[in-house]
Amino acid sequence: MKVIATEIQNQMAGASWIRKMFEKGLELKKVYGPDKVFDFSLGNPDIPPPAKIREVMIGLADQVAQPLGVGYCPNAGLPAFREALAAKMSVDQEIPVGPEHIVVTCGAAGALTAFFRAVLEPGDEVICPSPYFVEYGSYCGHFGGKLKAVPAILPDFQPDVDAMEAAVTAKTRVILINTPNNPTGCVYSRTTLQRLANMVNRINEGRERPVFLLSDEPYRAIAYDDVEVPPILPLTPYALVLGSFSKSLSLAGERIGYLVCNPALPDVGLLAAAVTMTNRTLGFVNAPIIGQKLAMRLLSEGVDRVTYNKRRLAMARVLSDAGIAFTMPKGAFYFFPAAPGGDDQAFIQALLEENILGVPGAGFGYPGHIRLSFSVDEKVILGAAEGFKRAAAKMR
Amino acid sequence: MKVIATEIQNQMAGASWIRKMFEKGLELKKVYGPDKVFDFSLGNPDIPPPAKIREVMIGLADQVAQPLGVGYCPNAGLPAFREALAAKMSVDQEIPVGPEHIVVTCGAAGALTAFFRAVLEPGDEVICPSPYFVEYGSYCGHFGGKLKAVPAILPDFQPDVDAMEAAVTAKTRVILINTPNNPTGCVYSRTTLQRLANMVNRINEGRERPVFLLSDEPYRAIAYDDVEVPPILPLTPYALVLGSFSKSLSLAGERIGYLVCNPALPDVGLLAAAVTMTNRTLGFVNAPIIGQKLAMRLLSEGVDRVTYNKRRLAMARVLSDAGIAFTMPKGAFYFFPAAPGGDDQAFIQALLEENILGVPGAGFGYPGHIRLSFSVDEKVILGAAEGFKRAAAKMR
Repeated sequence: MKVIATEIQNQMAGASWIRKMFEKGLELKKVYGPDKVFDFSLGNPDIPPPAKIREVMIGLADQVAQPLGVGYCPNAGLPAFREALAAKMSVDQEIPVGPEHIVVTCGAAGALTAFFRAVLEPGDEVICPSPYFVEYGSYCGHFGGKLKAVPAILPDFQPDVDAMEAAVTAKTRVILINTPNNPTGCVYSRTTLQRLANMVNRINEGRERPVFLLSDEPYRAIAYDDVEVPPILPLTPYALVLGSFSKSLSLAGERIGYLVCNPALPDVGLLAAAVTMTNRTLGFVNAPIIGQKLAMRLLSEGVDRVTYNKRRLAMARVLSDAGIAFTMPKGAFYFFPAAPGGDDQAFIQALLEENILGVPGAGFGYPGHIRLSFSVDEKVILGAAEGFKRAAAKMR
Repeated sequence: MKVIATEIQNQMAGASWIRKMFEKGLELKKVYGPDKVFDFSLGNPDIPPPAKIREVMIGLADQVAQPLGVGYCPNAGLPAFREALAAKMSVDQEIPVGPEHIVVTCGAAGALTAFFRAVLEPGDEVICPSPYFVEYGSYCGHFGGKLKAVPAILPDFQPDVDAMEAAVTAKTRVILINTPNNPTGCVYSRTTLQRLANMVNRINEGRERPVFLLSDEPYRAIAYDDVEVPPILPLTPYALVLGSFSKSLSLAGERIGYLVCNPALPDVGLLAAAVTMTNRTLGFVNAPIIGQKLAMRLLSEGVDRVTYNKRRLAMARVLSDAGIAFTMPKGAFYFFPAAPGGDDQAFIQALLEENILGVPGAGFGYPGHIRLSFSVDEKVILGAAEGFKRAAAKMR
């Protein structure tokens, strides 16, 4: 009997590389012990949330015990939280944003699916630079959207704006970017963003269904070397931003994110209302209420970037010592080095023989490289140094 | 410019009746003051969560402050929570259920969309008795499913099994039931469930793509008069159950639900894996982690049904005194009386003139009746008594 849909069956057959490595990791940890396995495959932020979270939880204890203390809230989010977010977004994005422009979602992922459901017609295209976060294809694919990837420019993975413009057709509905980038660590420059904005303005002249420029920014708070993470909203009325508190406050499991609609967008109120509705009808209903209350009270806090940076520098040394070529990440917590010899899956296999787990670039639509997360203890990074050397040597 | 998709635009034009009444209520409350408005339009459980939630929150404060304390968890839910849920489901459903059969979801709504995404091909039909929860159509419609409603049998709204069987075609994929029922308060009898199960067994003989019998049971814990809420899983291998803690623990805003796959279902492991994947790719990723931890620690608790029952009896008196015909609800917290005169929208309008808010049956695919939620303070019920009398009198 056929219990699942064909498309879903096909997707399961091509199961996510991240998931495969996760399972491989569990297996290795069982055999060798967890301290003998060097797992760089996951993006689960392991810096603790801001210490203040402890008192905030205790402070909420009385509140949640009240009638409606954990009740439904408006589908777009708690009004007070939307107000506070609007104030923060006005600073981050350097233009005034109101609470009416914000929809609080179930993580950045929930913002993406609710947005795609609201704007895509079947057959619409979503253009994004590759490498890209592997789930983007599913997010738009649920609603008949098709992801079209355009390779970014080496060595530092800024998007190839000319090639992206060349890829635009009458079916194009969204240009999706992700900065700071997963998996490359690239932070898009002001020049890049301006060129993308100009492109979208050009495309939209005389177009009935506008092309949106959607910037996925869950790693905005995690950047290094004082690099600027420039705002996109001021650059074109067609830009929208989404983000989450998964990384900036290490609240990944509680699923709090948001979509910010550009106040200058034509019919912005209609779009915000549509996403509020799809957020409800996709079954999210409202973002988890306790998470909203936590994030609201921790909005001015941040996670410890100094520790992330130490790990980044340690990982850079380990890779250099192993003779593995890479571009230094400026944001997020990933390296995306070239696989020595050029075959990412062969290199991942060689690393596995050293009990080192990474994800092949093929899992991000970009073979020939691998992704290594440095959201792990520094001793895991240092412990893997010799393994990296041996694995890299084998590939030459 | 056209910023949203046509289908979504159409859905917004036909905006939910519940939502319309909610907005009407806000307006009236502004004009007359909240204590002068009698709002029976919402199903937001207003009995507080079990008192123990206070100490549980405090107990979690240290835990959430740890590294990964609010980190991602496996897409199917916290292993310990799935274990605990499996034990509870084995009791509720009277057959042994394992943690591998359970997917923890973002509320019952999230369980429905993840399930529909996993099993529906475009054009598939979902048959359900009417009246029905208004969002069912959207939940399956996102993925090309079509809801086909079959009127339940008056006066007590048990589903019309013969008519449902007559409605089955080659395109039918799911029979969706909801017991205790929103909006009727009907609890499906053991006989009804057995007949539905026999029907599904019959249909599935020789069928390549089985028809599932999906029972939506978020109100399972809220039943009155010692009525039995019989289990469905033992009756056919094609039955699945979903539920939530929104009503049983008054945790609606934190969005914790679950799907229980029947251990006897062919390829049950494949189905559970598929729903785990769609739960991820629809953007839920995992059910909110703090909610999972709360629900796990409150699993043996329940909300105060005595208070719900008092309100039920008070509402019954008020309606009787107004000469409004109804069937006594046996579960959930809704009355679904016939509109005096037969025109539900006219009666809702007459009630509005008395500052009383309800939802017309049209919003549940069943005109001629109205839904009144008794998840409100008893004094709201008593305060509306004269208004109900006057409004009903006008309709005769």
